[in-house]
Amino acid sequence: MTSSSPVPTPDTIRAAAARIAGDVRRTPLWRLPGAALGLPCAEVWLKLEQLQLGGSFKARGMFNRMRSLPVPAAGVVVASGGNAGIAVATAARALGVRCEVFLPEVSSTAKRTALAALGATVVVHGAAYADALAACLQRQQSSGALLMHAYDQPEVVAGAGTLGGEIEAEAGLPDRVLVSVGGGGLVAGIAAWFAGRTHLVALEPEQAPTLHAARAAGAPVDVTVSGVAADSLGARRIGDIAWAVDRAGHIASSLLLPDNAIRDAQRRIWRTLRLAVEPAAALPLAALWTGAVQPAAHERVVVVVCGANLDPATLA
Amino acid sequence: MTSSSPVPTPDTIRAAAARIAGDVRRTPLWRLPGAALGLPCAEVWLKLEQLQLGGSFKARGMFNRMRSLPVPAAGVVVASGGNAGIAVATAARALGVRCEVFLPEVSSTAKRTALAALGATVVVHGAAYADALAACLQRQQSSGALLMHAYDQPEVVAGAGTLGGEIEAEAGLPDRVLVSVGGGGLVAGIAAWFAGRTHLVALEPEQAPTLHAARAAGAPVDVTVSGVAADSLGARRIGDIAWAVDRAGHIASSLLLPDNAIRDAQRRIWRTLRLAVEPAAALPLAALWTGAVQPAAHERVVVVVCGANLDPATLA
Repeated sequence: MTSSSPVPTPDTIRAAAARIAGDVRRTPLWRLPGAALGLPCAEVWLKLEQLQLGGSFKARGMFNRMRSLPVPAAGVVVASGGNAGIAVATAARALGVRCEVFLPEVSSTAKRTALAALGATVVVHGAAYADALAACLQRQQSSGALLMHAYDQPEVVAGAGTLGGEIEAEAGLPDRVLVSVGGGGLVAGIAAWFAGRTHLVALEPEQAPTLHAARAAGAPVDVTVSGVAADSLGARRIGDIAWAVDRAGHIASSLLLPDNAIRDAQRRIWRTLRLAVEPAAALPLAALWTGAVQPAAHERVVVVVCGANLDPATLA
Repeated sequence: MTSSSPVPTPDTIRAAAARIAGDVRRTPLWRLPGAALGLPCAEVWLKLEQLQLGGSFKARGMFNRMRSLPVPAAGVVVASGGNAGIAVATAARALGVRCEVFLPEVSSTAKRTALAALGATVVVHGAAYADALAACLQRQQSSGALLMHAYDQPEVVAGAGTLGGEIEAEAGLPDRVLVSVGGGGLVAGIAAWFAGRTHLVALEPEQAPTLHAARAAGAPVDVTVSGVAADSLGARRIGDIAWAVDRAGHIASSLLLPDNAIRDAQRRIWRTLRLAVEPAAALPLAALWTGAVQPAAHERVVVVVCGANLDPATLA
């Protein structure tokens, strides 16, 4: 964390929204009767954030951090081959700043190629993600570049929170909001925005339970990560900011979903809604379709569709 | 045509919208600055109609026809393995009526399976589409079922026109509207709605130029159809209703696009917008990205994204 008050407030989120308004896309909020999705609640509001620049919500936070802090001539550095890396590279290109992305040797050629195509300098270092991260931190020390974190920096979380503000500005206060959790940047931002005014449910794969494990242990702990959504929800530990937001009582509940329910929902979302989404983005509808979350008849439920960085061939 | 005044008016379209409001989805209108798409116009409004029930705009017309006319116990019949067949089967299932779909032997197993999964009785007859159509018409004569046409029935065209009304109700009158043309049901409905109040551009693949050829000949003529969008824009002749709407002056211009521009746009739409669309739905952005259509700086341009019935593996 880079600030003395890392948890965003509605005011810092409002300021972030103004800061990045010209940079990011205002994504559609698709309001459907629950029955259209086979659900007994009044309405489902699908926030189609997978249509965001770079294919995930991450662009909001990365633009906000780069616009909030001075970016040195050395530019920005990040260790991520997933949505965060893509978002940093996308924002850096748009703002005309240098960008170095550190990846481990296990990263796929497709990811390296995609990042390079966005203008980033790709540095492959070490066997595992932890090695790439160590090299990234070392590089940051020597170059003075601005370090970008996938989910645990105040500006990154406030940027994610702008998504909550956008939903409320367009459609009013929902009764319930369903959000996927990896490192917790998204859920922290949205929870900080609503601040208990709606019933916020944090959803994780059984095989990547960072928030759930922290709640059980009473503090953030490392978890073993695997499974279908590990690529984008595969943080090993909940972020400190997300943990602080949870301790503040802004997350009503934390639920786990099995991989098969996530994959089934991902395919059903394609088959019945023609939305191509990555597994991480399928958790909210998986929770509704399996009955893990059962909203009341009057409820208006937000489903945050958070990303679409996938190989479309996997939808069939 | 089944009525003495086959061309819809804004009033018949308004009535259609009220009739099908509980049946179809209100699809998102995604408004972006032109610059977000690399275009010099003020705004692009993407009507995400590929998210409609059944994966294309066709559901609007099929529901409208089934709700407008008495459906006999024999149900409905149609000869189409494409979006129209899917839409008829989808509407029939929702309304609880029988549905027979006639397909030629060349139709793919995937299409037959998809239609059967929607509850339709699939009848495979003859070598070519014309043979399946002949068998469908014969069947209709003997069973008395309601015949559904893919694009050339007044209720079908009026249903498609509701899409125009929806755009205007949400965002006001656009300066320009770009629409793909196969048999012309969609363009006819939208043109009938706007009735010259906006600049409507009809777009066709070079290899399926039904409207363009009719304009050149001064009357509807058969064309040879092939190419990347033949599956959904592959009507051999412009519909009589669409032709009447064109003669009324409601379509400002008719343009052809080469297959490679259509395929490039389809892939670029996936890569940069994360929308999975079929080739037919890529024509409007193909026209803008190739410069075939060059809106002025102040313009707000509607892009109708008409369908998403595709194998997602083809997006890569």
